[in-house]
Formats: sequence, structure tokens, C-alpha cells
Amino acid sequence: MEAVTIREAVPGDEGVILGFIRELAEYEKLLEDVVAKEADLYAALFEEDSVAYSLVVEVGGQAVAFGLYFYNFSTFAGRKGIYLEDLYVKPEFRGKGIGSALLWKLAGIAVEQDCARFEWSALDWNQPAIDVYTGIGAKPLEEWTVFRLDGEALHNFASGK
Amino acid sequence: MEAVTIREAVPGDEGVILGFIRELAEYEKLLEDVVAKEADLYAALFEEDSVAYSLVVEVGGQAVAFGLYFYNFSTFAGRKGIYLEDLYVKPEFRGKGIGSALLWKLAGIAVEQDCARFEWSALDWNQPAIDVYTGIGAKPLEEWTVFRLDGEALHNFASGK
Repeated sequence: MEAVTIREAVPGDEGVILGFIRELAEYEKLLEDVVAKEADLYAALFEEDSVAYSLVVEVGGQAVAFGLYFYNFSTFAGRKGIYLEDLYVKPEFRGKGIGSALLWKLAGIAVEQDCARFEWSALDWNQPAIDVYTGIGAKPLEEWTVFRLDGEALHNFASGK
Repeated sequence: MEAVTIREAVPGDEGVILGFIRELAEYEKLLEDVVAKEADLYAALFEEDSVAYSLVVEVGGQAVAFGLYFYNFSTFAGRKGIYLEDLYVKPEFRGKGIGSALLWKLAGIAVEQDCARFEWSALDWNQPAIDVYTGIGAKPLEEWTVFRLDGEALHNFASGK
């Protein structure tokens, strides 16, 4: 395989990243939920008050994978952490260690920045991914369930309906 | 009950908030995991590059509850969201709607700021909390499990051990 480079996303990458997000959503059978536009990603990643960060993996100059993350916070540790929201490798580049390389890069960033932890989520049926995650020593937080309010339910609750 | 006020945390609240964090950890049977110091909370909440935000609930001028949150990001929506990391109400003030009032306040902040979603997590055995969450229309993301790398496992993976 040609040389693999992992770099921070730069303005101009938002189109490639949106393409990856759509491919990932298709794999998760959630493509109809993707309403993000390139301008949304540009704002979130590159404008002042940005809330998200992304790494891009290139092989021979072609972008083949990305990892988008943000910072969370552990009240118990009193320190921030890294939460990897999306990790995606183009199908034809899977099985070459690119996903693990991205996780390794982010773990290094977490350690460098004195983060308390590095976290992400997996769909329970995505066994190939889960095998990679447990293989590198990550622990599933099986006792916890995330609750979400969005769309109409969020607006109804906020407005007292 | 005396008047209930929900306000943003201000410098000086870090001691009260740390006390709440320790009480919450005790309830979750995780007190030994709390290593946060007041200075850590001060930095995270009030210094430049702060990553966390907190609301404080007062009853008759006494702080009785808090909700600490940060922003996450939905790649599908292309918009930020609010993640409530900790919600705690002192035992003697429970059952009075204070937890729900905090959730309602945060839902309002999420809507005002055009957030895609408002999320938090619950321990699977905390049925009283889960009943409140489903009662206000929140959906449990039962298909997803969070994976965590921290402590020695994080350092070992980052350093290639």
C-alpha cells in the first residue's frame, strides 16, 4: 500500500467529509437522516466558536477515511476528554489498519492534551468494529444508555406542550 | 416550597458544584473515581477555552441542584447539540420537579441555540430517572454502546504497547 498520511482537516475538506458522512450513514442504514450541508461542516470545523475537529487519512494523496471528534468533560476526573463522533474508512481501504491508525492517532492527541478519556460509540450489531475496539483495550459502558430529545419532542418539551 | 431559581454558574460556585459531583458519585457507587479539584472545575467552567457549562438551581437562596453540560456535534444534522453530563438534585429536594425544571431549562437553551438535539445518559438500574426521561419524550438509544479508553489502557495504546 502507498504511504498513509493522517492530517488535520483544512478548509476545502468539507465536501469530502460530507461525502464520507453520507457513506457512513448509508452503511448504518440511516442515510435519510443526513441533512448536513457543506456550509454546516465548514462552520463547525473551521469558523470561530467551532465545536468539532476532524482528521483526514490520505493514501497516495487520496482521502480515504476520516474521524470527526469533539471535546467532552468528565466531572469525576475534572478534565476534558475526546469523543469520536464518526469514524469511516472507504470500503476498498478496509482491513488495512487505517481505522486503528486513526484511533491510535486520536489516543495520542488525548494523551498529549492530558485528556481523562477517549470515547466513541458503536452500533451493537457492528461486530467487526466492536472486535477492533475491545482488541485495543476499550471497555464497553454496558450499564449506561444515552437518552435523546430531538425534533418535535425537543420543541414540544421546551415550549411546555 | 420557596421560589426556585435556575441560573448559570458563576466563579465561586466551583466548590458547591464539586460537592454535588461527589454526592452524585456516591449515589452512583463511584465515589472513589472522583479526583476532580475545585481548580479543575474553575478552569473548565470559567477560563478561556472552557469546555463545560453549568446551571445551578437555588431554592430560597440555597443551591440544591446542578446540571453540567457541554456541546457535542451531530454530523448527520450538521449542527451542535447539548450533552448533559451530570444532573443532580439534593435528596431532600427531590420529588418537587427540580430535575425536570433543569431539563426543561436546558431544552429551551438547546432550541434557542438551534441545537439538533439534547442528550444525556442514565444508568440502567436508575429507574426513577428513566421514568422521568421517557415521560418527557426522550428516546433511549438502545442500539448504541459507548466504548471508553482511559487510564493505563489509553496510555498503553497511545504509546504502541
